[in-house]
Amino acid sequence: MDTVEIIRAKRDGHRLTDDQITWFIDNYARGGVIADEQAAALAMAIFFRGMQSDELATWTRAMVDSGSRLDLSGVGRPTVDKHSTGGVGDKVSLILVPLVAACGAAVPQLSGRGLGHTGGTLDKMEAIPGWRASLGVDEMVDQMRQVGGVIAGATGDISPADRRLYALRDVTATVDSIPLIASSIMSKKIAEGTDSLVLDVKVGSGAFLPEVDRARELARTMVGLGESNGVRTVALLTAMHTVLGRTAGNALEVVEALEVLEGGGPADLVEVTLALADEMAALAGLDADPAAVLASGRPREVFGEMVAAQGGDLSADLPVAPHVEVVTVDEAGWLGRLDCLSVGIAAWRLGAGRARKEDAVSPSAGVVCLAKPGDAVQAGQPVLELHAEEPALFDAAREALRDAIDVVDEAPVPQPLIVDRIEA
Amino acid sequence: MDTVEIIRAKRDGHRLTDDQITWFIDNYARGGVIADEQAAALAMAIFFRGMQSDELATWTRAMVDSGSRLDLSGVGRPTVDKHSTGGVGDKVSLILVPLVAACGAAVPQLSGRGLGHTGGTLDKMEAIPGWRASLGVDEMVDQMRQVGGVIAGATGDISPADRRLYALRDVTATVDSIPLIASSIMSKKIAEGTDSLVLDVKVGSGAFLPEVDRARELARTMVGLGESNGVRTVALLTAMHTVLGRTAGNALEVVEALEVLEGGGPADLVEVTLALADEMAALAGLDADPAAVLASGRPREVFGEMVAAQGGDLSADLPVAPHVEVVTVDEAGWLGRLDCLSVGIAAWRLGAGRARKEDAVSPSAGVVCLAKPGDAVQAGQPVLELHAEEPALFDAAREALRDAIDVVDEAPVPQPLIVDRIEA
Repeated sequence: MDTVEIIRAKRDGHRLTDDQITWFIDNYARGGVIADEQAAALAMAIFFRGMQSDELATWTRAMVDSGSRLDLSGVGRPTVDKHSTGGVGDKVSLILVPLVAACGAAVPQLSGRGLGHTGGTLDKMEAIPGWRASLGVDEMVDQMRQVGGVIAGATGDISPADRRLYALRDVTATVDSIPLIASSIMSKKIAEGTDSLVLDVKVGSGAFLPEVDRARELARTMVGLGESNGVRTVALLTAMHTVLGRTAGNALEVVEALEVLEGGGPADLVEVTLALADEMAALAGLDADPAAVLASGRPREVFGEMVAAQGGDLSADLPVAPHVEVVTVDEAGWLGRLDCLSVGIAAWRLGAGRARKEDAVSPSAGVVCLAKPGDAVQAGQPVLELHAEEPALFDAAREALRDAIDVVDEAPVPQPLIVDRIEA
Repeated sequence: MDTVEIIRAKRDGHRLTDDQITWFIDNYARGGVIADEQAAALAMAIFFRGMQSDELATWTRAMVDSGSRLDLSGVGRPTVDKHSTGGVGDKVSLILVPLVAACGAAVPQLSGRGLGHTGGTLDKMEAIPGWRASLGVDEMVDQMRQVGGVIAGATGDISPADRRLYALRDVTATVDSIPLIASSIMSKKIAEGTDSLVLDVKVGSGAFLPEVDRARELARTMVGLGESNGVRTVALLTAMHTVLGRTAGNALEVVEALEVLEGGGPADLVEVTLALADEMAALAGLDADPAAVLASGRPREVFGEMVAAQGGDLSADLPVAPHVEVVTVDEAGWLGRLDCLSVGIAAWRLGAGRARKEDAVSPSAGVVCLAKPGDAVQAGQPVLELHAEEPALFDAAREALRDAIDVVDEAPVPQPLIVDRIEA
């Protein structure tokens, strides 16, 4: 096999052969034969040329096969997971995992940390004193059998090809390529061993792919990859024009997730969570109504068991930021726009997110939305709370929010939260 | 400056700013800040997006400025050089450099070694016993003042950015991009310090860019880069459908060049050489007729002085291959096609060329064309001689030549050797 020939074939728009793909991914994951500059050139060629669907299926399977695929047959329940493409204030997993577990499935959620303006589920959970993200495979299977839900960091042997490729794409401007995104996500989810999967593909300014057409293409691609690898997969396109719920920040989001688990919480967050739970319950073949199960209070108990099983203490106080400032609006009217990306960047600047993988995050920092689009506002009314550990961070957050808020004369027409549904 | 932003800008089709270009090239040449995988991603993005002409001029100037530009003002004659994009049997420089020197110019030809099916001028010269390619800048200037012509290897400080980029492009399938080819060639020729330059852009199966449209685009791009950097530049597009002259191989080509310098040699080789010499004499402002100067025998003396100045001994026997086989044609008729690329690959397989930079070449191996397209042939007539140091190499050469020769029923119409001329 000749690496340069493989790059040239893709550069010139040809479908890579199965042998070329398998050889490339296997050798890149191992290290040695294929140099990073060669993988970067191939990634950029894929950015421009794309991949055919069967070609991408082979590519994804080779990524899965670069590591091990977890065997969850010992769990004794149907397994179903959810993956979100990432948004601002997206604390859905913290509610959904115990909810679907309480419905009777096992949820093996291997998750990641946040980068840039989108938060990561592990960062949120780590705001809970004592909670640890790292579990061995046996611990995971035990916890799923006994509690039903697990949120944990990916183990070392899940798609090592993706770990290397992702680090490379991050520094070579080859992240936003649909085949590369889809194979990265799906290789990890397939390797995780789940029977079925619901994808929450975000659309709007806070989303990774803001345009609905691109998001739909990503959703279709991922659903195809799941199905062709034996994972029943459905995708919902959901709105990310503004923060989901009212909070963006680690401990702030844990508090909000607990509110939903205790029967309250913002309506948009509840709606998206239940829509995803309905899909997961259906894929897992469960005879359960997630809304009724949520109302029963059982998911709150499961969440407590999940946290306790990983050393966390929900009775301890969650971290609270020592400094809070508010952002007000100048005019009266209706809040027309509260830009999702800007709020995400503000929360990041306040300390809730990180610029590089190795950075630490603040558990207490973030943004609270006191008003949401569609709410009537008075002149001078506070609409955002900024939470930070250091007052010096407020300036950068205010700068990020400079053009983020529009007050309008008429009540805006509410937009649907669930934008589309994609199945095989 | 952010490397990822630069890559993303080019990926998305934007013109890079002058600051971005200068920063990138300068830092890549130095090493440290920019990783090879980032340069590879940028090169592939340039492959797809191209560069605007002023953008490419800045890029090329930054490559020149990554090293030093030779000062040839001490030479005391107008300087003019020639660059060929490379072909099979292209021994033109060995005749042209002493010819144009004998016309009154100084020719500072910094040249390279061959790779793949195209030979390199230094490899040919190194077939002469004792000749050394490596000269210091002072030696070069002295030799140009006294003898007029120099053929030598590029010095270490000529466009170090190109040296790094070229090695990278070679392993990442980003060689055949017109802006990258043009800037690579022109950065070296500009840095070499010549006042003017004639480009021999080859067209046809043995050429780097076989199609005439792409060759013309490359020629126009290079002429523009020369002129915008103060080097008067003209390009000829010349035919490379079959071997130029009758030989492809290092010592074999030296012998043929000497034949031309001594008033003989194949007509196609003489025609191309004189066409280039006419352009060079005109650019240098010389009042000389290259054909008459060639007939005078003076260029043969200059070649002897050039060789002797670099330690070479033309009175010594040139290496001769110990094993010779012939390739015959089966039918009578006219030789319609003798494919240039195939002959180039055959010569390479016989040992005249190299697959990797660090390989050695055989001085004596190669191919001699006993007949050329347009010649009448008899059934069973030998049309090629294969020369090798080891008989084991003949099989691979015959395999390369399998579909290279067509015998036709009617004399083929001769095609022009000089296909086009491009000036600013």
